[in-house]
Amino acid sequence: MPTLSPRPHVLVIGCGFGGLEAIRALRRAPLDITVVDRTNHHLFQPLLYQVATAGLSAPSIAAPIRHVLRAQANVRTLLGDVQRIDPQARTVTLEDGQELHWDHLIVAAGATHSYFGNDAWAPHAPGLKTLADAFEIRRRVLRAFEAAEREPDPARRAGWLQFVVIGAGPTGVEMAGTLAEIARRTLVGEFRQINPASARVVLVEGAERVLQTMPPTLSESARRQLQQLGVDVLLNQRVTAIDGEGVTLQGQDGAQRLHSHCVIWAAGVAASPLGRQLAEACGALLDRAGRVQVEADLSLPGHPHISVIGDLAAARSGGPEGRPVPGVSPAAKQMGRWAAANLLRRLAGRPTLPFRYRDYGNLATIGRHSAVVDLGTPLGPLRFSGYLAWLFWLFAHVYFLIDFRSRLVVLMDWAWAYWTHERHARVISDLGSRQFPPMGDGAARDRPAQSPHATEP
Amino acid sequence: MPTLSPRPHVLVIGCGFGGLEAIRALRRAPLDITVVDRTNHHLFQPLLYQVATAGLSAPSIAAPIRHVLRAQANVRTLLGDVQRIDPQARTVTLEDGQELHWDHLIVAAGATHSYFGNDAWAPHAPGLKTLADAFEIRRRVLRAFEAAEREPDPARRAGWLQFVVIGAGPTGVEMAGTLAEIARRTLVGEFRQINPASARVVLVEGAERVLQTMPPTLSESARRQLQQLGVDVLLNQRVTAIDGEGVTLQGQDGAQRLHSHCVIWAAGVAASPLGRQLAEACGALLDRAGRVQVEADLSLPGHPHISVIGDLAAARSGGPEGRPVPGVSPAAKQMGRWAAANLLRRLAGRPTLPFRYRDYGNLATIGRHSAVVDLGTPLGPLRFSGYLAWLFWLFAHVYFLIDFRSRLVVLMDWAWAYWTHERHARVISDLGSRQFPPMGDGAARDRPAQSPHATEP
Repeated sequence: MPTLSPRPHVLVIGCGFGGLEAIRALRRAPLDITVVDRTNHHLFQPLLYQVATAGLSAPSIAAPIRHVLRAQANVRTLLGDVQRIDPQARTVTLEDGQELHWDHLIVAAGATHSYFGNDAWAPHAPGLKTLADAFEIRRRVLRAFEAAEREPDPARRAGWLQFVVIGAGPTGVEMAGTLAEIARRTLVGEFRQINPASARVVLVEGAERVLQTMPPTLSESARRQLQQLGVDVLLNQRVTAIDGEGVTLQGQDGAQRLHSHCVIWAAGVAASPLGRQLAEACGALLDRAGRVQVEADLSLPGHPHISVIGDLAAARSGGPEGRPVPGVSPAAKQMGRWAAANLLRRLAGRPTLPFRYRDYGNLATIGRHSAVVDLGTPLGPLRFSGYLAWLFWLFAHVYFLIDFRSRLVVLMDWAWAYWTHERHARVISDLGSRQFPPMGDGAARDRPAQSPHATEP
Repeated sequence: MPTLSPRPHVLVIGCGFGGLEAIRALRRAPLDITVVDRTNHHLFQPLLYQVATAGLSAPSIAAPIRHVLRAQANVRTLLGDVQRIDPQARTVTLEDGQELHWDHLIVAAGATHSYFGNDAWAPHAPGLKTLADAFEIRRRVLRAFEAAEREPDPARRAGWLQFVVIGAGPTGVEMAGTLAEIARRTLVGEFRQINPASARVVLVEGAERVLQTMPPTLSESARRQLQQLGVDVLLNQRVTAIDGEGVTLQGQDGAQRLHSHCVIWAAGVAASPLGRQLAEACGALLDRAGRVQVEADLSLPGHPHISVIGDLAAARSGGPEGRPVPGVSPAAKQMGRWAAANLLRRLAGRPTLPFRYRDYGNLATIGRHSAVVDLGTPLGPLRFSGYLAWLFWLFAHVYFLIDFRSRLVVLMDWAWAYWTHERHARVISDLGSRQFPPMGDGAARDRPAQSPHATEP
């Protein structure tokens, strides 16, 4: 029987882990939900580095939002970019001026990368947050090997064959380990002028250990595993410059310069610019990373109809005295469910509850047979690394992949890659002559007599 | 035992079907081969429309050239864009000025699309030749449905929901049929404001029938199958204008205007600009499509060391009086093998042989359960259409896919798509607010009470 009173309209900004969980938690509620996202897909971000390193194709980790939500009749999906939030009029404005009204707003706009004020570094050191970022990094990695094969000058060639990853958090560690594998395993035998295994992969970290959110013993284990894979780990190094020719580092024993045309930024995270919007429009307080300080129930102070969740929220577990909630996907999902539950409580006239983060542990992969795992169990922490940790990581990630087909495809891709060392997504789609970087004085005549196979029988 | 005399150096420009076959045919020859391509992958072009319509991901039909050729020790692969050919000095110049010397040159640079002198149409009607083209078309198709969902004005919405494919050759027929399927099957139930099945797909052809290279009975069958899939086929229509708002057609009974923001160009083919290079540098003659007229043995007149093959060559089977060789992949492959064989004959001091094209037939798919097949058999032509033709097309294409893994993946993707009607590669990767087209006066307030699910219980 159709009801005459209009149902409350919940607007969700962003369909990452937090937004999607909130929407799903509201699936049986008598609400109308609109989700607005800048892309058409929910991205399984923990495997994004696999797209950047050609191990998975994009569709394996990106499911169309409206397909994921097709059966949830109270949701409509809009592709759009929220430019402005008006808490008084209860509207948001999209990029073309279109306004959407809301009764309840859930802001789950996530984070982007931050260059700590050095935005001039951005074109020389792409970060890894979106599929477009992953394609750009994939293009640069593959192009570097191609350019090295064409470069006659050994010094210039070394610049193409040095890869620098900045920041030794989970993404940096995964990227560095996988790049080392590509150089040493995947590309073996495919080049004639260069030996891909001679490529140097450098992982640069400002702090004194890798994977700082892990216990020190696991950090040390991860560092050892990285070195076994062939990664040079440089700790206690501050980046002072990045340009088209490489990176300058400042360490305790002086400065050094790394010549590289493929630098990857995995260091800084900044909350979505919508945080600043909320600060201006609602007086929200931001922390240093631009994250919005929220009440214990994840609502915006003074604005109970607005919740902020996921990487955009500076939340504390259990209230203002609690531990800060980390910017990881399980936390975003828990916040999404929690914000949805509090919204339903508020609609029912019941008091909201403070968010409590359940930390099930932490895991990071490094490469083939290499990972570290730190689990919280009722019997205390369970920590292990190496092959078993890698298997655990693998199945945990496949299990949490968004739909059944992706799981199957990803498992198949990995099984294939495992046995063959191949990486099937090695596509450079847009490398016309314009994109190809000049390779210096490459006009040197390139006669086949110089090629290493010229004397083969 | 290393030989002291330098081995002849064969340079192959382009690693499509023609170039790759020539290289493989030379795998045991005492030669050094260099292949230069503008992309890093061999593309299985007959399935490119599946990437453009989100059915396959790019890596399924694009294999890295150096991976495909890794075991062939006499080949090296270079990523580069040939700008100039010098037949006297026997060099080619790449985009950065680097020169490569050759003793024998095989030009297999393929074709691009032609707008018959109306290059201003290009931004409004992308063609389908490269992976980058396929991504652009995929983005426009998916974006059109997204924009329609956001558009409150019915007339504007209809413009987003009208898709126009120009040219009813195999690519145009495949695109139109698949777009109709996407609208009627894939997207069902995923939108709230629009009914995707109300989208109109129009296939425009200048001639009086579709698939002109097929016998008329199969053209008629294809037209009927297209209509059953929901495609409007407009024959005898000349395109007189394309802009951002649609297409203007001129037919026998007057002009008409199709309002559309997603126009796909599948009409004209022009040979690679390297043809003009050969005309200027070697005095080669070009036909109207810019293809290079070659000798019966596929060499350039007056330049026995240069062969031109594939879509760039205007060849005739068996000599100057023979039938023109069509621009299809089996012809390119046969020319590649033939040019390689003639090169070996010339090196051995034997006379070259005129190329003979073996036509095994012609097939085109239209959509689910729909295709037409025209085979040449010793007992005469064998023609059939519909379900059986579709099965034949499917297995023929999977069989010719480049490597084992792609075959497996493509078969799996198709089996999945067949049973679920899903298309898994529905990714828009770069749709920031800049790329999103303005949607007119979309500032109309969008209250949930207007949405069709506002009165759901």
